[in-house]
Amino acid sequence: MADAAGAAPRRKPVKITKDNVSDLMAQVDAFVLDCDGVIWTPLATGMYPKAEEALDRLRGAGKKVMFVSNNSFHPPQEKFKLMGYPVSEDEVVVPSTVIARYLKKRGFEGQALVLASETFKRTLQDQGIDVVQRTAEDHPEKIIEFLRLVGKDAGKVKAVIVDFDLYLTGLDLVKAANYLREDPECLFFACATECNIPVGGKICLGPGYWTEIVERASGRKAQWVGKPAPMMVTEFLKDAHQLDMARSIFVGDSLEQDMGIANNCGMKKLLVLTGMTAIEDLETCDPNLIPDYYIDSVADLGRLLPKA
Amino acid sequence: MADAAGAAPRRKPVKITKDNVSDLMAQVDAFVLDCDGVIWTPLATGMYPKAEEALDRLRGAGKKVMFVSNNSFHPPQEKFKLMGYPVSEDEVVVPSTVIARYLKKRGFEGQALVLASETFKRTLQDQGIDVVQRTAEDHPEKIIEFLRLVGKDAGKVKAVIVDFDLYLTGLDLVKAANYLREDPECLFFACATECNIPVGGKICLGPGYWTEIVERASGRKAQWVGKPAPMMVTEFLKDAHQLDMARSIFVGDSLEQDMGIANNCGMKKLLVLTGMTAIEDLETCDPNLIPDYYIDSVADLGRLLPKA
Repeated sequence: MADAAGAAPRRKPVKITKDNVSDLMAQVDAFVLDCDGVIWTPLATGMYPKAEEALDRLRGAGKKVMFVSNNSFHPPQEKFKLMGYPVSEDEVVVPSTVIARYLKKRGFEGQALVLASETFKRTLQDQGIDVVQRTAEDHPEKIIEFLRLVGKDAGKVKAVIVDFDLYLTGLDLVKAANYLREDPECLFFACATECNIPVGGKICLGPGYWTEIVERASGRKAQWVGKPAPMMVTEFLKDAHQLDMARSIFVGDSLEQDMGIANNCGMKKLLVLTGMTAIEDLETCDPNLIPDYYIDSVADLGRLLPKA
Repeated sequence: MADAAGAAPRRKPVKITKDNVSDLMAQVDAFVLDCDGVIWTPLATGMYPKAEEALDRLRGAGKKVMFVSNNSFHPPQEKFKLMGYPVSEDEVVVPSTVIARYLKKRGFEGQALVLASETFKRTLQDQGIDVVQRTAEDHPEKIIEFLRLVGKDAGKVKAVIVDFDLYLTGLDLVKAANYLREDPECLFFACATECNIPVGGKICLGPGYWTEIVERASGRKAQWVGKPAPMMVTEFLKDAHQLDMARSIFVGDSLEQDMGIANNCGMKKLLVLTGMTAIEDLETCDPNLIPDYYIDSVADLGRLLPKA
């Protein structure tokens, strides 16, 4: 390798302190926050200490506060409610609500094959979308009978949606692959990206596996909705909430998902260190994911702001 | 690239003709045949013309005739029976019978989690192996309830077997991954290797996908039983039938699976051109897979032999 002496120096994020917090506040109208690792830990039953105060102080300073999460299974508004800090549904963006909105806005007709949780399906149904029902089918051993089951909804399904689905079946995957293969107009959305998800000492299998299989078997590429894809921000925050991206900041703990979506949408980037990223990770990460600012925790951000 | 003039010449297979067929017969005691593409086409209801006569003439010449297939779902003995040419079960080797034999021989105790067809499960049960039954479970949406289902057979399952399974569920895959991850003694067998299987104008999803997911999620590597892995030959033909590998020839249409298993077991290799391989493919294939002999069809092999 050539000597790196001539290379441009690696950009460094600015730590937010009492000396520069007012500069930041002057530049930003909206704080868009991830939740897992920022407001709470994934399995927690309460928010991080002083996270509530931080949100209150941001609001008190006249800032718009929004939450963007890949978790359509337990959407943040439910968790906030359980934790005694209710937020409006309008302040929360998850893939299921964005897809529901997207389909409704475009007058979607036809059925949706949804490899996801019942919560996810209800979100679509609440918007009038016809979701293919999974029935307790007979399990004939003859392939011809299996193909009859696969063919049952063929031609009617105009959208395939893949997310976290505990009870997915091989039949679902075969249906998804064939409908997408046979109908280039059939939409194909993928939400969360995880493959191996550790939960309660076990490994659960995430939607990353299912999306990959459906892509390989259908020859189609999914349209990603979850972070770091920009769809949740462009379809919702920008379009429905008219946020000015240049005056919005994404607050997250993950480089790839959170700093990634901010980077993909032209938002400012604020990293908190209460989740999956350590400050040392910035020395080796993709330079596009280096945040503009960092701070130890959301609580610390609150502490720097005046009381609401 | 350097000029290839100095490279060793590529080995060429010998076409079997009336001039050399008796040399071949003098060197070989056992003909081990693949079925799909050799005896019949996968979806056919009858054998290739004159295939029956060829098998009769091989037997008439005093040769042992065996059939090795990766298809435990519709094992060749069933297809032979339907076609009016019954063969003995003892002459047929498929992954399910080899695994059943392997487990029985080693006094396997514990349960087997079998991601495969009912036919496959019955083959194991006929040998006294306790197969985990798939029940119509409730589908609670809470992860804690899902984990209870995953945990139900934990500790009892001592073998995970993955093959062609039309009705596989995500729960099966999560169970498989966790049992293998938690118990290094739990055996892990994978049978057929296919991913996308075209059937009746649709794409079915094959066991290659399921094996890959279970391997990635468990951090374990499956022991392959199907061709080209040597297990079907070494466990059965060599061990149970005492075949001398050096005096046995594998007759198949696939380079990777058929010539592959022959290569991995020290058998002679005979390629037929009625299936998935054209003679031109030999110019570019892995040199280890180049057959010793080739012939247009099994029928032609029969024609070169005297009447039984």
